[in-house]
Amino acid sequence: MIEKQRVGRTKRPGNKTKARVRVFEGGKTRLKSDTLATEEPMEIRLVTGDVRQTVAVTMRTPGNDFELAAGFLHGEGIIASKDDVKKISYCTDPEVDAEQLYNIVNVELRAGLEADISPLERNFYTTSACGVCGKASLEQLELRGCPVVPPGPVLSPEVVLSLPEKLRDAQALFDSTGGLHAAALFDAQGNLLALREDVGRHNATDKLIGWALMEGRLPLSSGVVLVSGRSSFEILQKCLQAGVPVVCAISAPSSLAVDVAREFGMTLIGFLRGERFNLYSGSERIAD
Amino acid sequence: MIEKQRVGRTKRPGNKTKARVRVFEGGKTRLKSDTLATEEPMEIRLVTGDVRQTVAVTMRTPGNDFELAAGFLHGEGIIASKDDVKKISYCTDPEVDAEQLYNIVNVELRAGLEADISPLERNFYTTSACGVCGKASLEQLELRGCPVVPPGPVLSPEVVLSLPEKLRDAQALFDSTGGLHAAALFDAQGNLLALREDVGRHNATDKLIGWALMEGRLPLSSGVVLVSGRSSFEILQKCLQAGVPVVCAISAPSSLAVDVAREFGMTLIGFLRGERFNLYSGSERIAD
Repeated sequence: MIEKQRVGRTKRPGNKTKARVRVFEGGKTRLKSDTLATEEPMEIRLVTGDVRQTVAVTMRTPGNDFELAAGFLHGEGIIASKDDVKKISYCTDPEVDAEQLYNIVNVELRAGLEADISPLERNFYTTSACGVCGKASLEQLELRGCPVVPPGPVLSPEVVLSLPEKLRDAQALFDSTGGLHAAALFDAQGNLLALREDVGRHNATDKLIGWALMEGRLPLSSGVVLVSGRSSFEILQKCLQAGVPVVCAISAPSSLAVDVAREFGMTLIGFLRGERFNLYSGSERIAD
Repeated sequence: MIEKQRVGRTKRPGNKTKARVRVFEGGKTRLKSDTLATEEPMEIRLVTGDVRQTVAVTMRTPGNDFELAAGFLHGEGIIASKDDVKKISYCTDPEVDAEQLYNIVNVELRAGLEADISPLERNFYTTSACGVCGKASLEQLELRGCPVVPPGPVLSPEVVLSLPEKLRDAQALFDSTGGLHAAALFDAQGNLLALREDVGRHNATDKLIGWALMEGRLPLSSGVVLVSGRSSFEILQKCLQAGVPVVCAISAPSSLAVDVAREFGMTLIGFLRGERFNLYSGSERIAD
C-alpha cells in the first residue's frame, strides 16, 4: 500500500517530510511514522534590468533559500558583498504555479554589475519543460522513458542485513583513507559482484553502473545496489535508469529518493546498520 | 613546514595520496604519515566524427575512469548500452601535457547516435584556460583573485575538540531525520554563530556563507567553519572565497582539499572526533 502513495507535501515545502516506513529489527517487522529531510529542486535566476537568466538548479532542503542563492553566487565569484545585491525574492511570475513558487529564487544585482554566468550549471537537472518541483522531477524521469521496474527478486531480511559487512570488508581503500564513498552491486543471494569507490558519491554509482554497462549487464534486473552514505534523488535516478530493483543505503534517504522509489516500483532501504533496517518502498521484494 | 609542501603526485594520478599530518590526541601532538583519497578533476568529452565536445568535468578519485564516463553518460540518457560506444580512451592530443593526460576521457559514440548534451555540466568547474588537473584547479583560484588568508586567529586544542558536540546539540533537524549535512560557523573562542543544514553538503556551506554575506560579515577573518562530513576541493574553495582561516571536518579531507589549504594559508583539520583530530595545514593557528 505504501508504495502507491506520494510523500505528502504542502505548497510551501518544509524541511521535513513525513513518511510511513516498515522497520525490520531483531527478526520482527513493525510500521512506524518516520521523518525525512525534504529534497526539492531550487532554481537560482539572475535578474539584471529586464534580463533573467537561470544560473543554477540545485537539489536542496527548503529553508534559508535566499542565503543559499547568495552563498552560491558568492562562491562562483559573481557577487562579492551585500552591496552587489539589490533584491532577493521568490519568483512571483503569474505563469509560475503554486508548487514551484518557493523553488525559484530571483536575485537582482546592483546596476552596473555584469555577471559572466556561462560556466554555471549545478547538477545537470534541467527545468525547461516541467517546472521546478519534486513532482516535475519525477515527470522528467517519465519523459525520459524510464519504465517502472518489473517485479522480482525477493530477498530475505538476513541477506539484506549481511550487505554492509560485505561492503566494508571489500572496501580496502576506505580502510587506509577513511575518505571514500562506495557503491556496490550484489545479487539477490547477497554475493558481491562489484564495488566502486570515489570521493564523490555520484561518481561511485556512475563507476558501478558504467562497469555493468560495459560488461553488457544492463538492465540489472536482479541486482541490489548498496551505497555507503545517504540516498538522494540522483542516486535513485541512476539506479532506475540501470533497472536496479533494490537500492539500500547505510544512512537516510531524502524525501525525493522515496518518491522516485515509490513511483517507479523500486525497493528502497535506509539506515541499514547492525541488526536493523527501514523499508521505505517496495516491501514485496523483502520476504516475510 | 608542512604548509608549504604540495601533496606529491605522480604523472598518472593514483587513488591514494600521502601526506604528513599532526595528530592531536589526549593532549599530545605527534607527526605521522597519512593516506588521503586522491581528488582530481576529470573531463568527459564526446567524440562524434570530427566533433569533440566537453560534456562534464567532475572532481573524482582516479581509477575506473572509463566506467565513470560510461556510467555518467548512461545516467544522462546519452547511451543506453555498450553498443552505443565505439571506443573509450584517454585523450592523446599532442597539446595535452602529462599532468592532464589521464584526466581527460574521450568517448566515441557509434555512428548515427546523436547526443543532445546541452544541459550537462557537472559542478561548475571550467577548463578553458588552465587544463584539467589538480594544479590547474589551484591556479584557477589564483586567477579568480583569491588571496592567501592572513594570519590569525589562534585556537586552543580544547576549543577545537569542543566543536562537534556544539554542532550536534544545535542540529535539531538532524535528530529527527538523520539525513542532513551541516555547516556551522564558530568564533575563535568556540561560540556558535550560525548553523545551516541541507541534504547537499555544498548547499549547507553556501547557506552559511550566504548568511554571512547578507549580514555584511565577509571576510570571515576570525571564523572557524565546521562541516559534518568530509572536506573536498569545493568546500575549501567556498571557505577560501569567504576568507575563512580555519576549516574543520568530522571526516577525512581529500588530497585536493589539503592542497588548497596549504597553498592559500588555511588551517585544515580532519577526523575531529572524541578526544582527537588531525591537522593537515596551518599549524600556526593551533596553540601548543
